[in-house]
Amino acid sequence: MSIENISVNKSFGGWHKQYSHHSKSLNCSMQFAIYLPPQMGSGTKVPVLYWLSGLTCTDENVMQKSGIQRIAAELGIAIVAPDTSPRGEDVADDAAYDLGQGAGFYVNATEMPWSKHYQMYDYVVNELPELIEASFPVSDKRAISGHSMGGLGALNIGMLNPERYSSISAFSPISNPVNSPWGQKAFTAYLGEDKANWLNYDPSELMKRATELVPAKVDQGESDNFLVEQLKPEALLAAAESNDYPLMYQLHEGYDHSYYFIASFIEEHLRFHAKHLSQ
Amino acid sequence: MSIENISVNKSFGGWHKQYSHHSKSLNCSMQFAIYLPPQMGSGTKVPVLYWLSGLTCTDENVMQKSGIQRIAAELGIAIVAPDTSPRGEDVADDAAYDLGQGAGFYVNATEMPWSKHYQMYDYVVNELPELIEASFPVSDKRAISGHSMGGLGALNIGMLNPERYSSISAFSPISNPVNSPWGQKAFTAYLGEDKANWLNYDPSELMKRATELVPAKVDQGESDNFLVEQLKPEALLAAAESNDYPLMYQLHEGYDHSYYFIASFIEEHLRFHAKHLSQ
Repeated sequence: MSIENISVNKSFGGWHKQYSHHSKSLNCSMQFAIYLPPQMGSGTKVPVLYWLSGLTCTDENVMQKSGIQRIAAELGIAIVAPDTSPRGEDVADDAAYDLGQGAGFYVNATEMPWSKHYQMYDYVVNELPELIEASFPVSDKRAISGHSMGGLGALNIGMLNPERYSSISAFSPISNPVNSPWGQKAFTAYLGEDKANWLNYDPSELMKRATELVPAKVDQGESDNFLVEQLKPEALLAAAESNDYPLMYQLHEGYDHSYYFIASFIEEHLRFHAKHLSQ
Repeated sequence: MSIENISVNKSFGGWHKQYSHHSKSLNCSMQFAIYLPPQMGSGTKVPVLYWLSGLTCTDENVMQKSGIQRIAAELGIAIVAPDTSPRGEDVADDAAYDLGQGAGFYVNATEMPWSKHYQMYDYVVNELPELIEASFPVSDKRAISGHSMGGLGALNIGMLNPERYSSISAFSPISNPVNSPWGQKAFTAYLGEDKANWLNYDPSELMKRATELVPAKVDQGESDNFLVEQLKPEALLAAAESNDYPLMYQLHEGYDHSYYFIASFIEEHLRFHAKHLSQ
């Protein structure tokens, strides 16, 4: 388990760093970013928030555009941002932005040609935290968050692994992918035609049948162009109601799908996670 | 004076908007961004901070990467970010990143082929504020700030127009361009070989001989790769001392030339400007 440092920037008294490493789950070289808050300098082990990005993104989007470091520095939380898919010339791809590289959907693909590398679920749940916890002075307290496709990933991974995450949050998640064009296209490619195999990666399905209930917070912009066709928060809300799931949901007038929305509310998400991480 | 809206994003309760317009001074179509804080909705006229970006940047860098909107929303300040040069197929350019499009240095060029379009000083000092003040509910209270080449622009423009700006600030400015490779290359091209014509665009020269002293704040990262060869804050500090100029200067250990540095200290800059804008 070796990691190679690519870049370093001081930020709010802590450090933003990018690393590359060989991923066993993904069978390729991967890049991730970590924000190390100033508290880590004094030997304190800090908890980690994993941030999963949306379609077309890399580790850089949340680190450059969300302002997350300011609150992470105040609260003493490390932030880890993986890439959104396996990468490289040998890795299967598609010309569309919503399939292949940059669009891993955080699932373990079962279908060829995707299954050789597209094992993002295993990477995010197991390999990456193991690497982070072996390489940096962090505790084993974890939370997970994300945006759009990454909001789907955060909700799925958090609900499927309640023993591993203290809290879950999402901005504008793809909440019911089995009924959205993005989800149907990606799941058909990665998981095959049998829709029974899709249900384990559908946040609304998982929220209906969850038994250990990890606290969740979801924020959605009302002027988001993808709201009606792709995101479908109403399915998540119905699932939460049917299962008494502890979901805090807010719809925000005028906000869209961009990082301008995320930056406006990231502080509330970090304070939500900090409360649960400290319990 | 007509402007055309290109994009709108809600941000911290206010609005980030991009516009294009035909610039008379620059003789081409230009794009700018404005952040309108939530206070403007109630008919309040707010003051404006002009932000000048560095080499290779556009209106987007500060709006996407600095987190400036959070404090602008709190303090009720509009932020205006122009582009860094004239643009377009008809506009003279150079293959290097530090000359031509993206590298206007906020001067009025006198030499061919640059003089036809490269009149960024006039654009920033006169045309753009006139347009902003005619198009948006802002007051005529102005402050100016910027980064690197834009820090040079902010210091020059602020000191040359003390009646127009309440306060000046800069991150990592090119403080003594007549003695730096970036400055010498650009000034030779835009202003010609006679160095006497360069002195009016050199912040350290202007700070030595200023008579109306606009309060200024400069922050510099100690791990900035450009510090010694290109930025030369020591010249600015010597000038301030020789003229008793009200310059607040801070050198920050570990910080580099990136927006990670700017984001870490932008709040202090906005509070500095707010104090002077309200006087």
